[in-house]
Amino acid sequence: MSRYHHLWLRDNCPQLADPVTGHRIVDTATIPADCRPSAVDVVDADALRVTWGGDAHVSTYPGEWLAAHDYSNGARATRRQPVLWDASAADTIPRAAYPDVAADPAGRRAFLAGFARYGLGLLSDVPCVPGTVLEVGGLFGEVRTTSWGKVFDVRSTADANSLAYTNLPLVAHTDEAYRDPVPTVQLQHVLRADAAGGASTLVDGFRLAADLRRDDAEAFGLLSTTVLRFWFADAATELVCDAPVIDRYADGEVRAIRFSNHSAAPFLLPFDYMEPFYAAYRAFGAMREQACYQLQLAMGPGDLYMVDNRRVLHGRTGFSAAGSRHLQSCYIERDELTSRLAVLSRQLGAADQATDS
Amino acid sequence: MSRYHHLWLRDNCPQLADPVTGHRIVDTATIPADCRPSAVDVVDADALRVTWGGDAHVSTYPGEWLAAHDYSNGARATRRQPVLWDASAADTIPRAAYPDVAADPAGRRAFLAGFARYGLGLLSDVPCVPGTVLEVGGLFGEVRTTSWGKVFDVRSTADANSLAYTNLPLVAHTDEAYRDPVPTVQLQHVLRADAAGGASTLVDGFRLAADLRRDDAEAFGLLSTTVLRFWFADAATELVCDAPVIDRYADGEVRAIRFSNHSAAPFLLPFDYMEPFYAAYRAFGAMREQACYQLQLAMGPGDLYMVDNRRVLHGRTGFSAAGSRHLQSCYIERDELTSRLAVLSRQLGAADQATDS
Repeated sequence: MSRYHHLWLRDNCPQLADPVTGHRIVDTATIPADCRPSAVDVVDADALRVTWGGDAHVSTYPGEWLAAHDYSNGARATRRQPVLWDASAADTIPRAAYPDVAADPAGRRAFLAGFARYGLGLLSDVPCVPGTVLEVGGLFGEVRTTSWGKVFDVRSTADANSLAYTNLPLVAHTDEAYRDPVPTVQLQHVLRADAAGGASTLVDGFRLAADLRRDDAEAFGLLSTTVLRFWFADAATELVCDAPVIDRYADGEVRAIRFSNHSAAPFLLPFDYMEPFYAAYRAFGAMREQACYQLQLAMGPGDLYMVDNRRVLHGRTGFSAAGSRHLQSCYIERDELTSRLAVLSRQLGAADQATDS
Repeated sequence: MSRYHHLWLRDNCPQLADPVTGHRIVDTATIPADCRPSAVDVVDADALRVTWGGDAHVSTYPGEWLAAHDYSNGARATRRQPVLWDASAADTIPRAAYPDVAADPAGRRAFLAGFARYGLGLLSDVPCVPGTVLEVGGLFGEVRTTSWGKVFDVRSTADANSLAYTNLPLVAHTDEAYRDPVPTVQLQHVLRADAAGGASTLVDGFRLAADLRRDDAEAFGLLSTTVLRFWFADAATELVCDAPVIDRYADGEVRAIRFSNHSAAPFLLPFDYMEPFYAAYRAFGAMREQACYQLQLAMGPGDLYMVDNRRVLHGRTGFSAAGSRHLQSCYIERDELTSRLAVLSRQLGAADQATDS
């Protein structure tokens, strides 16, 4: 038996939805609280027809739609579940050759579906032409412009305004933690890599959070309830964002990871809170540098990785000052990527969609 | 008396910060847990000099810096407090003539400082030339490109894919609730408004949340802990975002409002939860349409409003089908706007900054 509230049925009446968008056209707040059917019958084999008292409006709900929205028996809006990964995932993470992804919608859909699950994807054979990262970004979404521009170059420079522009190792972090909203997807394209060293390190922040939650619930709790400040300032810019390391949905599920040790401002917490918080923060920080969690990839010219910047931490091992190394990066936003994946899945049909879940 | 933990001091050693960025260069997770000073003295009148046991590293903390970060006596990262407003705020909300804001950094700073407090700003005398909204957006931040492009036109059309493109009244809502991340700042520029009616309605969502919290804590709680789904789909797009109506920081403060009745998917909640949730949702929805909360502005050609889309709901009264009406909109992101405000404040000096808080 399925049960539906009168108000819920009236609120979701298919005949009161905009015919083009399917969006609600009646303001939910204005529906009389005492709306009641004057008659209810089954029509067309399995549709429910409700005639409403008061205005005599008639609503007809297809049986299939009612079944899909049977909240009395547990129907819930489901979020795509991530596949958690660690250092052993080198062979299972999504990989593709860029020409295939660019030319073939099915290849593109498979790559994006993998990205949605892993928060990570690797492309090879990306032409080593400066600016190509924008073309790749534009294939999956809209490139975000920030004060750094649309594309930014990563190579070592003398007066680096970021550790990224030195040849030092970079511990794993999420990018631009001081931005609000934080860029949601980062692409990094290797144009040149003569210098010895400089492997990319990638860590699944959701995996760290899940393991911490299992092993040390108190530390997990502290990292998700403490708001830190992240900051960046130079002559032209002053960026600040307040956010927790582990951001959770209101229902408890992990929504985002923000971990950028270099850009975290001095913690300003109640005195007695400082010691346990540092313990939790350092535990998370130590986990991200453990070999068992770190995927290390020797990226060569033409390789490109794309990461979910609210989930996956990235860094690099140090590299030799001799030889040259040149990467280009850009950001795109997650909503467009997910939209393009959904539209591709719709176009390619249901049979193919099975691999998507 | 001020107290600091040894670990905190070592972690925030000024001599271990990058000289260009001021960012931390030592990974916090690698600091030995038992780090202890071997000597502590006061130097240069008020600086604290710590010589560390173990590596004999010397850290010197200016007294002023220590005082500003005195967490044992309550120093906390403070967020700018919003000024809550309602229908009576017509005379106090930030207003400026666009030419002044464009030409004069002090005028621009004052306008942006007001926007940061109110989540709303009005500009007059914006040239009625299509595309000018992008110029205004570019003055305050970087324009976001979405699947709708950079700029979108609002006028009534026959096959509208959104209620916005009809001449019907639009109840107040936040824009693009189905995007993740949601656009953070919206600009809307009136190019032409011959049609009778069509006043803009603006509502401070933070004010609604504060009043609801005061008057009905249970309803406030339900709206901040229940994750709804927002959606939009057409031939080229399929956008979905899961988020609560009232999004709170981990420390409880309201962070964002997302209220878009038309794009909310049917609620799928546990059966016994549905009735109290609907009551809370409808209470919030009814508040946003109350005259006491709604600022109504008759916008004419050359007027432009800018709203914090994570705070302020906007809508419009209906307008006549006769006569023509043409608006252009774009989105920019909040981080760039806040950054430009901070840099302007820095450049214009501290005296002027007092009006900023």
